[in-house]
Amino acid sequence: MSDPRGATAVVIGAGGGIGGAFVAALAADRRFATVHALSRTGGDGGETVSAGTIDVTDEESIAAAADRIGGPLDLVLITTGMLHERGRMPERALRELDGARLARQFEVNTIGPALCLKHFAPLLARDRRSVIAALSARVGSIGDNRSGGWYGYRASKAALNMIVRSAALEIGRRWPQAVCVALHPGTVDTGLSHPFQARVPPERLFPPDRAARQLLSVIEGLTPAATGRIFAWDGEEIQP
Amino acid sequence: MSDPRGATAVVIGAGGGIGGAFVAALAADRRFATVHALSRTGGDGGETVSAGTIDVTDEESIAAAADRIGGPLDLVLITTGMLHERGRMPERALRELDGARLARQFEVNTIGPALCLKHFAPLLARDRRSVIAALSARVGSIGDNRSGGWYGYRASKAALNMIVRSAALEIGRRWPQAVCVALHPGTVDTGLSHPFQARVPPERLFPPDRAARQLLSVIEGLTPAATGRIFAWDGEEIQP
Repeated sequence: MSDPRGATAVVIGAGGGIGGAFVAALAADRRFATVHALSRTGGDGGETVSAGTIDVTDEESIAAAADRIGGPLDLVLITTGMLHERGRMPERALRELDGARLARQFEVNTIGPALCLKHFAPLLARDRRSVIAALSARVGSIGDNRSGGWYGYRASKAALNMIVRSAALEIGRRWPQAVCVALHPGTVDTGLSHPFQARVPPERLFPPDRAARQLLSVIEGLTPAATGRIFAWDGEEIQP
Repeated sequence: MSDPRGATAVVIGAGGGIGGAFVAALAADRRFATVHALSRTGGDGGETVSAGTIDVTDEESIAAAADRIGGPLDLVLITTGMLHERGRMPERALRELDGARLARQFEVNTIGPALCLKHFAPLLARDRRSVIAALSARVGSIGDNRSGGWYGYRASKAALNMIVRSAALEIGRRWPQAVCVALHPGTVDTGLSHPFQARVPPERLFPPDRAARQLLSVIEGLTPAATGRIFAWDGEEIQP
């Protein structure tokens, strides 16, 4: 990241556990002069942090945030996502499928990030390496699905992986130095994973600050050859 | 298919090009005593064809059709799907993404078939091999996506492939002889593919009756070991 004024990052979903940790880690990284922290409620800025609002289920809000921030951007992190809400656990069986709930998962986990790609990819720096990444999940890998269940979450993350792949191909034609990837953060100690932490070994349940550092380290190592692919917190590639 | 009274098949989306061809092929197959042809408008029955209505975007309609038909079923084919509508072509670029249109693709191509799996899988015959299959598409393969574009169609079919995988795992635990798969019909000469046929070599543009025969031949050869996977019209497995 070689902008002499320092790099610019945008974190979408800064109100979430991982998103907030990304903002803190980037604000502490001297290479970044500005970190735009976008969340539903906005919240407080700081010396290098510029806070703003975004609602990924409202395209006008996404477009307005992108217009406000402008380019060139070195790093865009799309960290929004939902696994469960209002006390409803992920579906364990077909009989629990609900059309409205499935639609909500696609809206938040797939369509929202897709619209963020639409509005933020054109702001990526063109004269140097830049990265736009969306948080996906290993359970969004179809080939890796050996236990079933979690229909809506799995399907919406698989769909997101496809959106990332198509976007990477399109972005790569115009920004050959850009990298567009999906990332699996592991199981992070946030509200999203809370009901499922009991089955995770303690050393594999990452505090958000550690998860953010691990993913930033993976991002640091990505070359344009990685574009369109899915990477886990330890740098391992995940097959779709 | 060893029901002495003859096998029973259900075709969901019988009003479509491929769905209608499935009904005709199954009605002509002496192993099938009854073919339930479900479409939005219902339509005409025949000697072995029982016509009924279904709207895959309305769960009550799906549940009512399943209740009406009952089990045991030997073959369920979910053939509904959309690529474009009202003259809008698939997205070639991120800037063409539209939230409402993406939501509609997930509703028709993913959620509808998922709800059909929910209501029809429990009707599969348990004492013999049975098959439940959904029409997917090769462009729904993330690994195979090398040209990009077609964001909504690709993502909704990738999501469908994931739903099929989770459903196969669940069904396999209770119906060890059942096979649940996604199928790629190739490019079939229907309204769906009509705007894209120019780039398809003539010998690879299948008339619907040929496409139906080819897929029924693939289905015929599937064993329970195939469950959860994606197969093309020529029997080749497609990676997710």
